[in-house]
Amino acid sequence: MRISELSAKSGVALPTIKYYLREGLLHQGEQTAATRAEYDESHLRRLRLIRALLEVGRLPVASIKKIIAAVEDESLPTHQMLGTAHWALGPTVEPEPGADWQLARAEVDRLVTDQDWTVHPEAPTRDELAQTLVKMRQLGLSGDLAPYVEAAKKLVREVEMDAIPFDGPRDAAVEALVLGTVLYGRALDTLRRMAQESESAHRQTAS
Amino acid sequence: MRISELSAKSGVALPTIKYYLREGLLHQGEQTAATRAEYDESHLRRLRLIRALLEVGRLPVASIKKIIAAVEDESLPTHQMLGTAHWALGPTVEPEPGADWQLARAEVDRLVTDQDWTVHPEAPTRDELAQTLVKMRQLGLSGDLAPYVEAAKKLVREVEMDAIPFDGPRDAAVEALVLGTVLYGRALDTLRRMAQESESAHRQTAS
Repeated sequence: MRISELSAKSGVALPTIKYYLREGLLHQGEQTAATRAEYDESHLRRLRLIRALLEVGRLPVASIKKIIAAVEDESLPTHQMLGTAHWALGPTVEPEPGADWQLARAEVDRLVTDQDWTVHPEAPTRDELAQTLVKMRQLGLSGDLAPYVEAAKKLVREVEMDAIPFDGPRDAAVEALVLGTVLYGRALDTLRRMAQESESAHRQTAS
Repeated sequence: MRISELSAKSGVALPTIKYYLREGLLHQGEQTAATRAEYDESHLRRLRLIRALLEVGRLPVASIKKIIAAVEDESLPTHQMLGTAHWALGPTVEPEPGADWQLARAEVDRLVTDQDWTVHPEAPTRDELAQTLVKMRQLGLSGDLAPYVEAAKKLVREVEMDAIPFDGPRDAAVEALVLGTVLYGRALDTLRRMAQESESAHRQTAS
């Protein structure tokens, strides 16, 4: 298809598509004449991925470039390609000096070992969870994560990983991961607050 | 205790305490002399609450004032007082014009009815969830929320509501609600991403 059709089918404006081409986020079409190039399904998939990373992942263009480089590097195993996107989705957390941090971070590492989880030693989620634990302890919360670990495991095993098309095109797998992680995460957070409101109402009319 | 001791015990700097007093966030101490006032446990509890709302809830001072007004209005039932804090914790979502929004919002209302949840007809969580559903549909996700509803219900019923001291001081109940909602929510989100990384690794080495 021509670039105008690519724009119509994807819903992405022509100047935006040209910007993605210049930035290398979108691969070039096949040049069929001096001023004409042909685009195909792979370009549509890439535009869907860029949209997911921008609008849902809210990632900066620099992060998106890294993720797309991983998508295009066919020598990179799928799991590592997904990891590149996955790591970019979390907040950036800097370790804090002091014993509180050391304790919390050691607790996170123990949790990963106890769960027999395959989580990279340098995965940013480890520092992210440590930061939350430090805050919990400072403010006097027990920080018993066991029920949350169980809930997360159940959702991931029974639902979320089945939604990732591991064997399809690489763009589609990353897109599904990003959309699933962010949007179902958002839904879960809202549902939790709805359930809290309801349970709070019941407990107080019951007493 | 004197204001200097209140500062030392709470860890809140003296000028900050004076600012909270001027703004009406912290109730005045008992005037025992022209230049001297006595503070007690209720002031310590209030400072803990303010800190939770600011640092963990990341709420603006205008929202904090509303919440504290609800805490101080003893005629307001506990459930409604908690609701004031609870509603402030979510993002502000504006309904969008169009059929997609109407459909998603109707689906949310149906979900609340089917679950027999007591959620206020104007609770902002309803619009928040509708927004996520609209996005899911636009991007081609099935948006099957059932497993997330079950996870949320289980956590709230079995763990989260037991952590709220409904019968204690009003400040303490709101503080526990805010800390629990935000910090355990953050932990759950991180744990979900850790479990995803691990499960992704296992599925791909297994295949």
